[in-house]
Amino acid sequence: MPINHAVIDNPKSDRIKRVAGLARPAGRERSGRFLIEGPQSVREAVTWRPDVVSDLYVAIDVDPDGEPYLSDTLAVIVDKSQESRKTPIYVHHVTREVMAKISKDAQGIVAVGDIETLHTEISAVRLSERPLIAAFWQVRDPGNAGTVIRAADAAGCDAVVFVDECVDPLNPKVIRSTAGSLFHIPVLRMDTGTFLKWMERDDLNTIAADVYGTPERKPETLPDVLAERAADAAGATRGANGVRGDAVLFGNEARGLPAAILERMDRIVSIPLYGKAESLNLGTSAAVMLMSLAMSGR
Amino acid sequence: MPINHAVIDNPKSDRIKRVAGLARPAGRERSGRFLIEGPQSVREAVTWRPDVVSDLYVAIDVDPDGEPYLSDTLAVIVDKSQESRKTPIYVHHVTREVMAKISKDAQGIVAVGDIETLHTEISAVRLSERPLIAAFWQVRDPGNAGTVIRAADAAGCDAVVFVDECVDPLNPKVIRSTAGSLFHIPVLRMDTGTFLKWMERDDLNTIAADVYGTPERKPETLPDVLAERAADAAGATRGANGVRGDAVLFGNEARGLPAAILERMDRIVSIPLYGKAESLNLGTSAAVMLMSLAMSGR
Repeated sequence: MPINHAVIDNPKSDRIKRVAGLARPAGRERSGRFLIEGPQSVREAVTWRPDVVSDLYVAIDVDPDGEPYLSDTLAVIVDKSQESRKTPIYVHHVTREVMAKISKDAQGIVAVGDIETLHTEISAVRLSERPLIAAFWQVRDPGNAGTVIRAADAAGCDAVVFVDECVDPLNPKVIRSTAGSLFHIPVLRMDTGTFLKWMERDDLNTIAADVYGTPERKPETLPDVLAERAADAAGATRGANGVRGDAVLFGNEARGLPAAILERMDRIVSIPLYGKAESLNLGTSAAVMLMSLAMSGR
Repeated sequence: MPINHAVIDNPKSDRIKRVAGLARPAGRERSGRFLIEGPQSVREAVTWRPDVVSDLYVAIDVDPDGEPYLSDTLAVIVDKSQESRKTPIYVHHVTREVMAKISKDAQGIVAVGDIETLHTEISAVRLSERPLIAAFWQVRDPGNAGTVIRAADAAGCDAVVFVDECVDPLNPKVIRSTAGSLFHIPVLRMDTGTFLKWMERDDLNTIAADVYGTPERKPETLPDVLAERAADAAGATRGANGVRGDAVLFGNEARGLPAAILERMDRIVSIPLYGKAESLNLGTSAAVMLMSLAMSGR
């Protein structure tokens, strides 16, 4: 794709500084916008949530004759961003030097998104016929946070909930780790009380994913829960509790879930370890439990 | 733990250079030894495979009075290494500067292991009553390789097989990513032909984990396979094929499995994606499929 309009070549311009600043919490708070880095994330954003995206910044290369051009991979994403929409997405061409200033993880393209537009209220979450919600208490590591959003997406969850003090889901490393899933599934933030009240109102079965349980309540094991579901499905009955869906809450990477929260959950379920491994990491635990429940329900 | 013998303080000594060199293929090939970095890996090595470990290198700190001492965390691992064994493990004290020269990922402790002692021949693998084997074709990324070994361990697999050209399982990054599982479960390397011959000889059901299948054979889905297993278990019968266990083969991160291999497998099974995620990564796929099969068999 040849380029016929201005290319931003000043890495010190205010506009470029502002975009680069969106990688930091202060920059996001000040502007109400966030940064989406790299071809995969930007493609998923303009495909699934074009309403969220206001601007694209794409790096321009120069051919041996000195003519500027846009690589085919990036041109496909830019074209996608211009398909029928209500509000336009502005495309800015920048030099490789300017792109390096914006982000080290751009791989040639970033987008600017609007925080308020991506934000989902509880009342706006549409639950499916047999809902599955993935909740995470105090997830702190950006890579883990992205991985669990991706796992929840793969399992067809209706929503992801970050409970209490979690990493910001609009942290650029979280977004990169979701591989685009941030734009496939609503991600909400709330405190424990609000989360539990919501689950009760919508009649969802709350499951704590926890290895230890409390002194009074040892965890059930996941295969037992799956066997019960299979038996229910075979008898074409509803779940034993008459519930119509599940919300699984996973604990912090290092500390798991506190007893005060475990006591308020309907069930405590652990993933058995059959070998000598001491634990599964958070991302793997979430994928195994959410995918198992999803597979058992269909 | 106070220290009362010599501390190696010369980062340029030949011994230290040799140990540091084990991070590279040439160093391992020359010496027949490999490097185990960090408290978790070293603890698992001296706990489960002390026969493999010849030497420990531990970093010594200095207290405000100038007295050298060993931190409690490291002292526990050193003590463990000295429990009843046939051959001694030699413990070397080094300065923090020397440790930094050995490895950036030591967190105060490394061990040197013997490649030949860790090596397992096919004839030495002991299959359990209902065996599960995790095999990976051309896994190339060290982090992925470690993660899948850890997942196989958690699922109680009898062995891990790296098929054809894979990353070296003794690459330090692989070992770190296994979180000690390399010392819990045999990891073998072989070509496709040898792998398939072994599976046939031991009457294991070969399952290709693959999303696409071949033009003639579409994949079955994992939940269908699990439902069949549950029905078999309920009827207290053996599997439909009369097989006594499974070997699951996963493909390369980018290219999956070639048709020539798919055609030689008993079954092709895919993990369904319920949401809008395009794929699961190799580590997550392996964890979901291996754990699901393990849970369905008990």
